[in-house]
Amino acid sequence: MPEIDFNSDLGEGFSIYRAGDDAAILPHLTSANIACGFHAGDSRSMRSTVALAAQLGVAIGAHPGFDDLQGFGRRMMTLSEDEVYELIVYQVGALLGFTKAAKVELRHVKPHGALYNFAAVHRPTADAICRAVKDIDPSLILFGLSGSTLVTAAQACGLTVAQEVFADRSYQEDGTLTPRSQPGAMIENLHEAIDQVMNMLHLGEVRTTQGTWVPVTAQTLCLHGDQPGAAAFASAIRQALLKEGITIQKPARART
Amino acid sequence: MPEIDFNSDLGEGFSIYRAGDDAAILPHLTSANIACGFHAGDSRSMRSTVALAAQLGVAIGAHPGFDDLQGFGRRMMTLSEDEVYELIVYQVGALLGFTKAAKVELRHVKPHGALYNFAAVHRPTADAICRAVKDIDPSLILFGLSGSTLVTAAQACGLTVAQEVFADRSYQEDGTLTPRSQPGAMIENLHEAIDQVMNMLHLGEVRTTQGTWVPVTAQTLCLHGDQPGAAAFASAIRQALLKEGITIQKPARART
Amino acid sequence: MPEIDFNSDLGEGFSIYRAGDDAAILPHLTSANIACGFHAGDSRSMRSTVALAAQLGVAIGAHPGFDDLQGFGRRMMTLSEDEVYELIVYQVGALLGFTKAAKVELRHVKPHGALYNFAAVHRPTADAICRAVKDIDPSLILFGLSGSTLVTAAQACGLTVAQEVFADRSYQEDGTLTPRSQPGAMIENLHEAIDQVMNMLHLGEVRTTQGTWVPVTAQTLCLHGDQPGAAAFASAIRQALLKEGITIQKPARART
Amino acid sequence: MPEIDFNSDLGEGFSIYRAGDDAAILPHLTSANIACGFHAGDSRSMRSTVALAAQLGVAIGAHPGFDDLQGFGRRMMTLSEDEVYELIVYQVGALLGFTKAAKVELRHVKPHGALYNFAAVHRPTADAICRAVKDIDPSLILFGLSGSTLVTAAQACGLTVAQEVFADRSYQEDGTLTPRSQPGAMIENLHEAIDQVMNMLHLGEVRTTQGTWVPVTAQTLCLHGDQPGAAAFASAIRQALLKEGITIQKPARART
Repeated sequence: MPEIDFNSDLGEGFSIYRAGDDAAILPHLTSANIACGFHAGDSRSMRSTVALAAQLGVAIGAHPGFDDLQGFGRRMMTLSEDEVYELIVYQVGALLGFTKAAKVELRHVKPHGALYNFAAVHRPTADAICRAVKDIDPSLILFGLSGSTLVTAAQACGLTVAQEVFADRSYQEDGTLTPRSQPGAMIENLHEAIDQVMNMLHLGEVRTTQGTWVPVTAQTLCLHGDQPGAAAFASAIRQALLKEGITIQKPARART
Repeated sequence: MPEIDFNSDLGEGFSIYRAGDDAAILPHLTSANIACGFHAGDSRSMRSTVALAAQLGVAIGAHPGFDDLQGFGRRMMTLSEDEVYELIVYQVGALLGFTKAAKVELRHVKPHGALYNFAAVHRPTADAICRAVKDIDPSLILFGLSGSTLVTAAQACGLTVAQEVFADRSYQEDGTLTPRSQPGAMIENLHEAIDQVMNMLHLGEVRTTQGTWVPVTAQTLCLHGDQPGAAAFASAIRQALLKEGITIQKPARART
Repeated sequence: MPEIDFNSDLGEGFSIYRAGDDAAILPHLTSANIACGFHAGDSRSMRSTVALAAQLGVAIGAHPGFDDLQGFGRRMMTLSEDEVYELIVYQVGALLGFTKAAKVELRHVKPHGALYNFAAVHRPTADAICRAVKDIDPSLILFGLSGSTLVTAAQACGLTVAQEVFADRSYQEDGTLTPRSQPGAMIENLHEAIDQVMNMLHLGEVRTTQGTWVPVTAQTLCLHGDQPGAAAFASAIRQALLKEGITIQKPARART
Repeated sequence: MPEIDFNSDLGEGFSIYRAGDDAAILPHLTSANIACGFHAGDSRSMRSTVALAAQLGVAIGAHPGFDDLQGFGRRMMTLSEDEVYELIVYQVGALLGFTKAAKVELRHVKPHGALYNFAAVHRPTADAICRAVKDIDPSLILFGLSGSTLVTAAQACGLTVAQEVFADRSYQEDGTLTPRSQPGAMIENLHEAIDQVMNMLHLGEVRTTQGTWVPVTAQTLCLHGDQPGAAAFASAIRQALLKEGITIQKPARART
């Protein structure tokens, strides 16, 4: 039977600001991607989200993004490869501070937003991210869009990859996610989401917004934590996976 | 014969901004305190300063400060103990990312500016800093003002401490540094600076601006890197120390 | 019959972050204090909150705070008088950009959080704020804690002042607000809040947490917009004021 | 005889950071473009640069850029038209605060760096900038690259424009500036710079790096203030202009 990791982007609130109900979503997950203070979150949210994930045995990963709080890391910034490398090292390092302080493992890295999307199609950016992750710790797992350039780059540099698929995002004909600026980017209907997940897992394909099918490799499944009702969504998807006999577990780390 | 570590605060430039001539000062030092992007510096300066220090065999430490770029971390901010803890973990972690990526050792932590000065007199702040450093890595050495509350707190929690004295800052009757806002805070005359260093090393005392003497323990000697002529100052002090037969070396790390 | 202005702090959300339901609260108010992007808000929230207030005929004011997003401007920062002056000019100017662009009047200034509280007791800080406001436009109205040093300073420099009282904050024996870090700082019970408002308006006194009474001058009444249920609170207080025959209107501007 | 305005980008230092010797360059200029705290500068530099320019009778303009301090506003960020509008209103408003406080005129606006370059070729961005400037004050003069889309957009919306040419930047075949990332972007030789200026003024053409000539309209001449030796460069160019009988004066403002 297939198995899959179940992840969400967490720790995105800070100051007086809430972003998603992390405590309600976390029990349904096997991996938590924690914002590192650039596109969202701060040192307070990093510490508390690490503590919460550790308590529930959820694998902890860094979720670094562009240094653009106003745009929540969803606006493209044109960075050199060195700048991308340094952006990743800084943020992953900062989260590593919190995992070390909490005596827990930092297990994976998943780039955020516009950085994630650009790395999915731009090899130099993907390479810079991979080099940064590998230089910090070659046993870290990189999460990248299934079938994307980021996955190719990670495999080329010897990193363990978890190919990521999305439960609540629609796909375009070229296999990339429908941009949030377009209608239909988010899948808000639970049944549609579960259908998409099952197709990805059982068929290895996802139906695009144009009606065609594109192949996917579903190793880690993402659900966005900042949508209203995200916890109920997470719970329902988890139940649907278990009912089909699918094992939900964090990806295996490379032996080093 | 006595021995001493020789340190400076570096990596404080970023973007188009220069702050001190790190490359000229570094060869004279045994320890470099690298700014972590909050009061100064950024991911670019952290990476390049780590590389430069590593190349010269200079010990690398984190130099975390208040999140106040406009004030260069020299303005007091009233933080809770938890906020101080998180501030330290975040910044030390970020630098740890760069030392891990460069395969070099992160050896010490020295708080910056207003945080350093407040921790010298406020035990809860000192305790929060020490807990953060110890939680990340109990073998890290903490640099704190000689004779201060930060030193007491570090010893109480079992951290190795390097008690710090200043070559180019004047002292007040209570053993704290003359605030930069006051005249005479900086010692700009080389002979005065060397005199002060020799008194601190040989007598274990420093002459205050009031003319009295206060005891100091000189384990690490700081020279500010952002003053004009800092490199020549550093070179001259180094020569003076060597001429007196004093060994200049980084402090020994605790066995763990 | 007495009259009073009714204000709230708005425009404090930004990016994906919400902070209070401005659209629901605004119809009950006569003055809106709009965050200026330092302690909260951004250029997007400033533009949209100005537009919303303008549409409803609510008077628009700037709500500048310390440059401390993580602490929401509630952490004390030690600034020089020049720094305070510049902090105010920058933020009031930025909001003035939006009111000019929207062809509406910028009418008042109310400092935020720790800056408001410190200016209530520290004359040099109060003076710096008043000079900044007056230099930008001497006909701007300054909102300051009733009976505080900020009110005294504003009167001394010839600014029109609206002395402020709080519907949902408790008072201490010295006439200052109970700090948010202490229990009982917020008045969450509607009847208690209305009682406090009526006492302030009819008796010119407020009952402190110690049970004593201190005099207040109620020229503008603040309700915090970021509490849950703030809109219902605002509506109920408005009704209570109207029922007592009290006129709710924005403060008169000085003739210049 | 022709006349021209002579401008430079100033007020780009802050905190402990210097960027150019504003006091040395200002006496040679007729217009100063002052950084507004996003890509460079802060409230302190804005106040002091406004004061310095006012004292010397140099016209004051806002120099808004992307919110990217690390990249000095030279990295492209993909913003919506609304976001560009808000970015400009905020920063121009902030500087307006300082000119109002100093009782001097805010006279022009010149976008900075990547925003300037993108507005030179992207009409929606150019339109958003023009709308923002016009909404704040329709008599403000917009500085834009000679012959660019920004000039066209400004003319279309009725703003007064000063077409800008560069003394120390080389031009490409399409009339845009050679990107700073390429060799030969900066003209460091004084004679070459003066030759280029004279060709632009007398012939209305500039020689590109490819050796071709492109037409330019030289209404305001920019010299970068952050280069070493900028003050001597400014002085020499000023002398060369005067020697040729060219009047150096700030552009005339539209009557409104």
